Amino acid sequence: MHDLWLHEKNTEGYGVKWRITEVLHSEKTPYQELAVVDTLEWGRALLLDGAIQITEKDEFIYHEMISHIAMNSHPNPQRVLIIGGGDGGVLRELCRHRRLQVVDMVEIDARVVENSKRFFPAVASAFSDSRLNLYFEDGLAFVKNVQDKYDVVIVDSCDPVGPAVELFSETFYRDLYNILNDDGIAVVQSESPVFYQQTFVSTHSHLASVFPIVRVYLAPVPTYVSGPWSFTAGSKKYEPAQLAENHENFADLKYYDKNVHSAAFALPKYINNLITK
Amino acid sequence: MHDLWLHEKNTEGYGVKWRITEVLHSEKTPYQELAVVDTLEWGRALLLDGAIQITEKDEFIYHEMISHIAMNSHPNPQRVLIIGGGDGGVLRELCRHRRLQVVDMVEIDARVVENSKRFFPAVASAFSDSRLNLYFEDGLAFVKNVQDKYDVVIVDSCDPVGPAVELFSETFYRDLYNILNDDGIAVVQSESPVFYQQTFVSTHSHLASVFPIVRVYLAPVPTYVSGPWSFTAGSKKYEPAQLAENHENFADLKYYDKNVHSAAFALPKYINNLITK
Repeated sequence: MHDLWLHEKNTEGYGVKWRITEVLHSEKTPYQELAVVDTLEWGRALLLDGAIQITEKDEFIYHEMISHIAMNSHPNPQRVLIIGGGDGGVLRELCRHRRLQVVDMVEIDARVVENSKRFFPAVASAFSDSRLNLYFEDGLAFVKNVQDKYDVVIVDSCDPVGPAVELFSETFYRDLYNILNDDGIAVVQSESPVFYQQTFVSTHSHLASVFPIVRVYLAPVPTYVSGPWSFTAGSKKYEPAQLAENHENFADLKYYDKNVHSAAFALPKYINNLITK
Repeated sequence: MHDLWLHEKNTEGYGVKWRITEVLHSEKTPYQELAVVDTLEWGRALLLDGAIQITEKDEFIYHEMISHIAMNSHPNPQRVLIIGGGDGGVLRELCRHRRLQVVDMVEIDARVVENSKRFFPAVASAFSDSRLNLYFEDGLAFVKNVQDKYDVVIVDSCDPVGPAVELFSETFYRDLYNILNDDGIAVVQSESPVFYQQTFVSTHSHLASVFPIVRVYLAPVPTYVSGPWSFTAGSKKYEPAQLAENHENFADLKYYDKNVHSAAFALPKYINNLITK
């Protein structure tokens, strides 16, 4: 086996390295560098601009946790919007919910979807769901122009560099607020509260300028930077930490269940202190 | 600033690297290679045989979580034993508890204590506590020979390589059982359930051969390997996930509070599946 290591530099003072057994694919899309590699220990991994987005072995953690919290705290999530999420993992999780009637997905880069279908069929497994409308557009423009209203919006963005920066802005969250029904919930991935503390704090503060209820929940994702990963929910009416009475249970999930739902909101004091005055 | 990186290889296929600003100390003790470095982002770090044990910035997570769960689920933890823990962090946390009357600490390597006092005074802050009896001995022999009984035992070991291997054995856990009072609780650090899955599973299974109640709880520690870190409690009588009625609250902790206590036991399904048949 050749001694091939992929290095990810997370901050000025910290990085991780992954042993790669094969580079399966590499291309420059109109929006980013995209690569698919086979790792020694995590199965295949999708990289965008050099950062691991998903691996076969632990993608379920992020995808379950970004999806089911909102879907199970909202009592009737019929119309749902995904911003980003081109690999299809969020879509797969949403489509488990029988109450889902329409899911609009807005991904800027069609090549992510194409490559996920080719290299990650178990992640990209729901693109043929009849409830899906897939738009290859800029999510920022979409949420400004769409006339429909949603019950739930999931923002599955990459890190806030380049065009994704605006997906962490107060303006964007205000647009999300406006396209949500009066009892709607938005969930965004809000980065590592430890390694990317500034993004985590500003995401919370921007959401709190717009939504009456803002809650952070955590899940450590082994193939993301060490420590907890965070998600932040902005809600108009329902308490995201609380399961709706008619929430759904899925026996074949690998991370999420109703105990995990509540527990994920119990923030360690050092993280809670970052977002309370 | 020179471009100095400390590499930790966690598995065959994964490693992390830390930017070091200064090597403050390095020595070969009778038991291990010990080093103290200053990192760019995490303050000072203590290394044993090349693996980071603690950093100034996040040592509180591990130390609070390995200590307060047992101390707050046992209604009257008067006599406590620490195996290992030479840096003094567990001792510091235990000494917050007013019900503590005697704490015996058995550390094999006196140099760890000496260097912690010198380089990590905020961690080694309780070595002058009058309730402490400090023994520089092999913990394995100590637990075979000691005549006293304890309410709580905390096993703060390093990774199971070299002499520490036996600290993860069923024989050792049986000795712990024997030196605990009839309502005693033992807590051991049980490694990453993801990166060191085999150790995690065997620790649980060995404890379950000895203790009637065995519970795993989790906390992600940013400067340990990515994903959740695990602790496993073996208990003779009390449910470790449950706070004793007279548990203590400490306003100046940075991780642990009563919500975190319960939530830490809500295991993600993929981890729970490792330890349930």
